[in-house]
Amino acid sequence: MSEDLRNLFEHGGRYATTGVFVCFEGGEGAGKSTQSRLLADWLEGEGYSVTRTFEPGDTAVGKRLREIVLDPATGDLSNRTEVLLYAADKAEHVDTVVEPALERGAVVITDRYVDSTLAYQGAGRQVDGRELEAIARWATRDLRPHLTVLLDLAPAEGLGRFEERDRIEGQPVDFHIRVRDSFLTMASAAPEHYLVLDARKPIEEIAEAIRSRVSPMLAQARKASEEQA
Amino acid sequence: MSEDLRNLFEHGGRYATTGVFVCFEGGEGAGKSTQSRLLADWLEGEGYSVTRTFEPGDTAVGKRLREIVLDPATGDLSNRTEVLLYAADKAEHVDTVVEPALERGAVVITDRYVDSTLAYQGAGRQVDGRELEAIARWATRDLRPHLTVLLDLAPAEGLGRFEERDRIEGQPVDFHIRVRDSFLTMASAAPEHYLVLDARKPIEEIAEAIRSRVSPMLAQARKASEEQA
Repeated sequence: MSEDLRNLFEHGGRYATTGVFVCFEGGEGAGKSTQSRLLADWLEGEGYSVTRTFEPGDTAVGKRLREIVLDPATGDLSNRTEVLLYAADKAEHVDTVVEPALERGAVVITDRYVDSTLAYQGAGRQVDGRELEAIARWATRDLRPHLTVLLDLAPAEGLGRFEERDRIEGQPVDFHIRVRDSFLTMASAAPEHYLVLDARKPIEEIAEAIRSRVSPMLAQARKASEEQA
Repeated sequence: MSEDLRNLFEHGGRYATTGVFVCFEGGEGAGKSTQSRLLADWLEGEGYSVTRTFEPGDTAVGKRLREIVLDPATGDLSNRTEVLLYAADKAEHVDTVVEPALERGAVVITDRYVDSTLAYQGAGRQVDGRELEAIARWATRDLRPHLTVLLDLAPAEGLGRFEERDRIEGQPVDFHIRVRDSFLTMASAAPEHYLVLDARKPIEEIAEAIRSRVSPMLAQARKASEEQA
């Protein structure tokens, strides 16, 4: 492995210098899409340029990869295959969606990012965590969110919100328990970049907590946006 | 990057202890499929169990990935996306086709393998070679062919054999020149695992040179195959 990649991995990431990068993470049914929409609506009302996106599948190639990974007909994939497909989706997403928007000074809000890979493939599938992380970091050139909002929810509660389940949602409950623990561990290791919220709280209360945390981060995005205009 | 992966990368690979793993490499139109078929026919005539395969695309998932990578409609992919898609194809190919056949004691003959990735994405697309290699080695758990037959041909000659070109074949000639140089460099670095042949020679002359080199490697495959039976 190149020294470059080792250094990248060991030095704790790269943060965009224009725009604001916010990520929503959490298990199935925790309310990520509801909260990311509420945050986007509020930011647009305040005059910010917002790009809402998600992983996996928010590029033309990513859509085809998402179909492969989530389609129950795909059956069992080799663990390494699955890791590399998610990484390919990330590479395309960062290069063609996330970075261009940040460079324009936008607020980028993504539903899932690297933490989901580490939680689902690492904790869930028990692939070597450091190898997995090195590949996900390489795929994204180690671009990290300024803030990750973790909507925390006990798996039994989140999964109860769905009638039909895809390949991932259909995993046993202990898989989802390991996933949750992994999210919480990542958040506690870097509290300056995380906001952990109890997903059972009322929607508006959660939304308000998110706005309070995001507000002070916006000056930079506004400045970059005004310089563009 | 984990110490495991570094060690794997630095210690020069893993070779199957049952079966024989032979790879055909070379540019477009060098005669890889003709020669791999002739070798397979001869081996089967001699009573060996043979698995003929290829990259990319010889698994259900790989077929869908090959469509994405080679389809001219895909347009430009991020370099990292392309690297990771080829790696995903390899992971699935090794885990579900190559390794199971070798474990049964078969002779596995593949048309393209890791060297193609290193030549096309590394030399061709100018992605960092050591990063690329680390990912391809991780995808394949660093399984290497006992023998790689490199059918060497000047790019202008090989490409002249096609009327229609896919996304890779349609690259400029200097891309294909870098690819050829990369193949030759890899072969010269490990001559004990390579047979380099001039692809302009008569088909039967090439086939005979390949049989001569493969023959002494077969005792192990026969032994494993007999133990199975």
